[in-house]
Amino acid sequence: MTDQPTEISYEEKLFSKKYYIMTPGPTEVPQEVLKTIVSDEALLPNYQEIYDVDVKLIKKLLNNDGEVIIMGGGATVGLEALVSTLINEKTRVLVLSAGYFGEIIANLIKIYHGKVDVIRERQGKIPSLKAIEKYLSKNKVDYVIFAHCETSAGTIFNIEEIAKVVKENSQAKIIVDAVSTAGAVPINVNNGKSGVDAVVFGAQKALNMPPGLAIVSLSKKIVEEMEKLEPKGYYLNLRLWLNFWETKRRLPSTPPINLLYGLKVSLERIFNEGLQNVYRRHLLVSKKLRDALRKMGLRIVAESEEIASPTVTAVYMPNGIDSETVVNDMWRKYGVLVATALGEISNRAIRIGHMGITATLDNIFTVTYALSKTLANRGVSINIKDVLSSLT
Amino acid sequence: MTDQPTEISYEEKLFSKKYYIMTPGPTEVPQEVLKTIVSDEALLPNYQEIYDVDVKLIKKLLNNDGEVIIMGGGATVGLEALVSTLINEKTRVLVLSAGYFGEIIANLIKIYHGKVDVIRERQGKIPSLKAIEKYLSKNKVDYVIFAHCETSAGTIFNIEEIAKVVKENSQAKIIVDAVSTAGAVPINVNNGKSGVDAVVFGAQKALNMPPGLAIVSLSKKIVEEMEKLEPKGYYLNLRLWLNFWETKRRLPSTPPINLLYGLKVSLERIFNEGLQNVYRRHLLVSKKLRDALRKMGLRIVAESEEIASPTVTAVYMPNGIDSETVVNDMWRKYGVLVATALGEISNRAIRIGHMGITATLDNIFTVTYALSKTLANRGVSINIKDVLSSLT
Amino acid sequence: MTDQPTEISYEEKLFSKKYYIMTPGPTEVPQEVLKTIVSDEALLPNYQEIYDVDVKLIKKLLNNDGEVIIMGGGATVGLEALVSTLINEKTRVLVLSAGYFGEIIANLIKIYHGKVDVIRERQGKIPSLKAIEKYLSKNKVDYVIFAHCETSAGTIFNIEEIAKVVKENSQAKIIVDAVSTAGAVPINVNNGKSGVDAVVFGAQKALNMPPGLAIVSLSKKIVEEMEKLEPKGYYLNLRLWLNFWETKRRLPSTPPINLLYGLKVSLERIFNEGLQNVYRRHLLVSKKLRDALRKMGLRIVAESEEIASPTVTAVYMPNGIDSETVVNDMWRKYGVLVATALGEISNRAIRIGHMGITATLDNIFTVTYALSKTLANRGVSINIKDVLSSLT
Amino acid sequence: MTDQPTEISYEEKLFSKKYYIMTPGPTEVPQEVLKTIVSDEALLPNYQEIYDVDVKLIKKLLNNDGEVIIMGGGATVGLEALVSTLINEKTRVLVLSAGYFGEIIANLIKIYHGKVDVIRERQGKIPSLKAIEKYLSKNKVDYVIFAHCETSAGTIFNIEEIAKVVKENSQAKIIVDAVSTAGAVPINVNNGKSGVDAVVFGAQKALNMPPGLAIVSLSKKIVEEMEKLEPKGYYLNLRLWLNFWETKRRLPSTPPINLLYGLKVSLERIFNEGLQNVYRRHLLVSKKLRDALRKMGLRIVAESEEIASPTVTAVYMPNGIDSETVVNDMWRKYGVLVATALGEISNRAIRIGHMGITATLDNIFTVTYALSKTLANRGVSINIKDVLSSLT
Repeated sequence: MTDQPTEISYEEKLFSKKYYIMTPGPTEVPQEVLKTIVSDEALLPNYQEIYDVDVKLIKKLLNNDGEVIIMGGGATVGLEALVSTLINEKTRVLVLSAGYFGEIIANLIKIYHGKVDVIRERQGKIPSLKAIEKYLSKNKVDYVIFAHCETSAGTIFNIEEIAKVVKENSQAKIIVDAVSTAGAVPINVNNGKSGVDAVVFGAQKALNMPPGLAIVSLSKKIVEEMEKLEPKGYYLNLRLWLNFWETKRRLPSTPPINLLYGLKVSLERIFNEGLQNVYRRHLLVSKKLRDALRKMGLRIVAESEEIASPTVTAVYMPNGIDSETVVNDMWRKYGVLVATALGEISNRAIRIGHMGITATLDNIFTVTYALSKTLANRGVSINIKDVLSSLT
Repeated sequence: MTDQPTEISYEEKLFSKKYYIMTPGPTEVPQEVLKTIVSDEALLPNYQEIYDVDVKLIKKLLNNDGEVIIMGGGATVGLEALVSTLINEKTRVLVLSAGYFGEIIANLIKIYHGKVDVIRERQGKIPSLKAIEKYLSKNKVDYVIFAHCETSAGTIFNIEEIAKVVKENSQAKIIVDAVSTAGAVPINVNNGKSGVDAVVFGAQKALNMPPGLAIVSLSKKIVEEMEKLEPKGYYLNLRLWLNFWETKRRLPSTPPINLLYGLKVSLERIFNEGLQNVYRRHLLVSKKLRDALRKMGLRIVAESEEIASPTVTAVYMPNGIDSETVVNDMWRKYGVLVATALGEISNRAIRIGHMGITATLDNIFTVTYALSKTLANRGVSINIKDVLSSLT
Repeated sequence: MTDQPTEISYEEKLFSKKYYIMTPGPTEVPQEVLKTIVSDEALLPNYQEIYDVDVKLIKKLLNNDGEVIIMGGGATVGLEALVSTLINEKTRVLVLSAGYFGEIIANLIKIYHGKVDVIRERQGKIPSLKAIEKYLSKNKVDYVIFAHCETSAGTIFNIEEIAKVVKENSQAKIIVDAVSTAGAVPINVNNGKSGVDAVVFGAQKALNMPPGLAIVSLSKKIVEEMEKLEPKGYYLNLRLWLNFWETKRRLPSTPPINLLYGLKVSLERIFNEGLQNVYRRHLLVSKKLRDALRKMGLRIVAESEEIASPTVTAVYMPNGIDSETVVNDMWRKYGVLVATALGEISNRAIRIGHMGITATLDNIFTVTYALSKTLANRGVSINIKDVLSSLT
Repeated sequence: MTDQPTEISYEEKLFSKKYYIMTPGPTEVPQEVLKTIVSDEALLPNYQEIYDVDVKLIKKLLNNDGEVIIMGGGATVGLEALVSTLINEKTRVLVLSAGYFGEIIANLIKIYHGKVDVIRERQGKIPSLKAIEKYLSKNKVDYVIFAHCETSAGTIFNIEEIAKVVKENSQAKIIVDAVSTAGAVPINVNNGKSGVDAVVFGAQKALNMPPGLAIVSLSKKIVEEMEKLEPKGYYLNLRLWLNFWETKRRLPSTPPINLLYGLKVSLERIFNEGLQNVYRRHLLVSKKLRDALRKMGLRIVAESEEIASPTVTAVYMPNGIDSETVVNDMWRKYGVLVATALGEISNRAIRIGHMGITATLDNIFTVTYALSKTLANRGVSINIKDVLSSLT
């Protein structure tokens, strides 16, 4: 054979794609969205119509009859805009924290001089309803804020249960950071009746968009509240966004117009599949993944199935195997990109994203196969036949 | 939920891709090739340099120091050009036929008035070396011609063994139709010493190109032979192709230039992975597929592992289940496109292509899953856990 | 300034596009067609529906109620298929030649052993109606064949006038090679009544497709004629194409399916603009170009406006300036690709294509500017203000 | 002819492209950038390396040895981040205003409670050096801020002259909003020695990127200044951006990574052409446009050639012709998109952008032709031959 010797083991090319982006975000982007954001139409300077379309689709996604604002910038921008608009030195806030991102929210509120208390649990757990009830029965707060999915640990809060407790025990408004869940897990704000008054997220997670858009959904009630507060700044001032659109039908700053076109395609994909189908797919696929991981002898970070997120799974590595080593091995050998955990468990756990178009059975097969082989290569005893048989 | 009821069962969206083109060709085309064939450079009118590059890469692929001709047109064009250039009413030809495509070759030779004998076996078997030896010991022929892989039945010939028998028993030149194998199964013409004098194939199979290119590889010996024959026609006259290039450095007809650029990318992909790795991948993946099919209780058309093709698998469906029904079910419900068999077994067997970029473990997982579920839905009893466990 | 010195004069970047493909073919391909030929749908293996659509659109383009065949291969393939199917040693053919491509047609007929006479004129002229009339009054022929546009010299025949003369003086059928005109200049076969019985062309000229498709349009009369002739060969046998489609609804060889999808887009573009608008645009733009060239002091090869092609202009260079030098200068300095002429005038004249999407006023501006500057740089005295003022 | 009658006059298709985006931004995006921002590599989640590359290229563009920050968001975000980081109720600022955007800067400073004075001129003029000198001789300010190009009126400030006056008469630091000039007009901050301490712009103007990136360039001196100020907020806090990168090698918020890859391609295009060539091209092309506009009998808004911007031209329409009418006509009939002016002159003037890849001679031809015909259709007497002759 004339073929030169090669150092590539043939295993590395056993999978179809060069890259499997299975991090908890930014996620893989579907070809349709990619084609759209570089299309002639999406590069024209007008955005009025497409913005209207996107707002309507987001309202449909969340069942919101209030307002929606779509801003250029990372998801952080949306959260900070909410905080900057609503929070000042008189505002009392309760943050529910299940780890890394919960703490970030608390810090952001401090930056804007809010009075903040935190009910926190270590990664793998989430604050109990009882603790929330107890706190609210003794303290008056203006807002309860939490991240729907604590992406650092693959845990998820139950919005409806929390909203019930909050409503029964206080007048507080609820703000949900839905950055890793909107479009993959139900978030029904029920036209303000659910008790959730603001939802904020980015499009680069379960909506499978390139980064660049922050989305803020507001109830009518919170919009009225805003009008009473003294305005601050320009770009992060949500009142300005609403006023500009209402009075001038333009935004305070030219948004990434082409992404607005991509967002439409992304949301239509979801509605075409059927919202319930999309939600069930995430449930089903994440369940299979956790089963397979357990068959490998691994421990899931989320301490019960009830609080395991359908969009991201954090799993402890076997003793003596560093999470970064595993992430690197999987990337170099199989092109499968997962992430280390964040916060205290970062060295010990990896995180696998399964959001939107990456929450599929063949991707779960690939990531399962790649992780099994990676661990086996590092000396872990794994029965791969048994592992794969859980992917039915 | 505001979501409209939908008829789509969520199972249909369990896989990543909209379409899985797992027919025996045309096959899926990699993004890199697609980008190349619509690139600025590939749409310029000059083709001299890129043609040279492609010819060199094809020679490397086949280990040929003779000539290579790349023509616009389907793979048929290449085969007919060979026949039209070499065969006339005086030419004696032995065709080895293992089914549908073997018979097409025999017919083509008759159209050009060649004297043709056929050693044939029914689909699932291939002519024995003994039969070939016996025929040649009694008959003088100018050419022995056969399809390397009988795509209609998923069987494959052993070129080296046949070449040995032919060389020991005759002066005949060997022509191989490698349409479903070049780039996926070794075809080493060994600079004319193997006994194979011409190889013809299209780029739309294991090279994963869109249809439009026919490739003809010739030994020095057969080129000399050509020069003695009376020329016929223009486009199918291979002598003209060689003479035009040699004397004018252009071809008798403008080729699909952009595909020439794509072909380079396609061949470089193969060499980058490593020829031996590519061959091993096809062997490995096809073996796993046959294992999984047998775990479903199905019978492979190829009657032994030795003659089962690494690029296409034909498999009988259970009694009472029509192949076309299965093909339609898999397409409609999972987007997995396979094909019915051809010839006598067409109603009873389906064919699954695994050529080039589609010969991957995750694709085998997907096709295996989709077929298992399809048959189960049609009442076949299948242990899917057991089936999947064979994909390690 | 930290900027490195550069040898590029700023003139070279004065134009928007990297390349201006203004050769007489292959021509520039519109983005819509490029996107289509690499789309998911166009890469699926089925072609029945899209083939039907294309055939219908071609019939609409030519006003033909007979048959249309679309084959994989260069334009040559279509012409040779016609010749191979219709011509044998008994066939008498009159070829009208205005240069290089006329002679190629005559040679092709000789290869298939037809009895051929040629009425020829030197490049820049075309055979007179009188000469045709005189020949036909003395000779019986089965076919009159000519290239609508003699691309080597930028001249064009008047199909209607020739058809009238042929019909009045003979029973001959007319075959038109419309390779550089179909889609840009009217070719109305008027459902067989015009006297034109076959039209053949490729898609890579005025239809602005990448090379790879040959299109043959046949009247009902010539299809009947075919049925009487003895079949020859396979791929070039047009009877087979018609019979396969009629009886099996597939073609003798898998066509470049993705190009069939592209062809639809290309033809729809033309019908969307309006056929008459497209024809007028070519007339208008080619007229402006010739005016500008004359203002540069150059002589057009076509000896009168009546026989100047709306799709390609050949123009003599000033004495002492080689055509290849000019072609190279324009390419290197401005990215404007034109071609040298072919045949006897090849050293002395260049050819500028203006076909389909390249027949636009801004392209004419660019090519005019680039040629003016190129000649000025070579010492020719040119009043560029005056030249540009002709582009109103 | 079977072709349906159409209402499209053939004039509308006389140009090559469907759209000519000749607004002052967002501008047309080159294919190379579009391909890059949807490439596999650009969609991976890592951005450290590409961010470093971009920062280096921006420093090269501006000749800055200080710091560069690239943020997700519109150009406004960059400007507000600068203001929010540097300005508080104690800060004294002089704004130089030549119209609409100058006033926006002044307002933004007020939002952040700065003490602001404005030297303003009406659109078409710019504040004189004398007026600036006079003001500074009597007042102490911390910052002088102005928009390099007043995009609403097509006027441009001379940075070097202003910097000289400021340095000679004060200790003020200079902040330049270079939104419509960076990459098209020299902005040499000369490693802090020029007196310019901060430059801010977006990539969607002369860098021809889709909107989504704000770029802030800082001198070492202003970075030191920042360290002394009390931090405010998160996303708009430039100190955080510098500290995050320095200490954690990541940014406070995931940027639009794919745009970072696009930015590299965009900047490399500029350096490949040669910075001086790019600057000269803008000068040359804008000069020709103004000449052609004057030949149409129109008046340029910029009152002298010295203050006419090389990147955007504002021109008064003839009496009785509304700017919006002209904008609409040009768009509907020719696909040429220009903009109305802004501010007081908005009804009377249109603005034509010629930034980056749209600053080409053929685009100027197209816009000139389209405007000439549009005005002629509205009854204005125009000698189009004369107009075109100025485009040599």
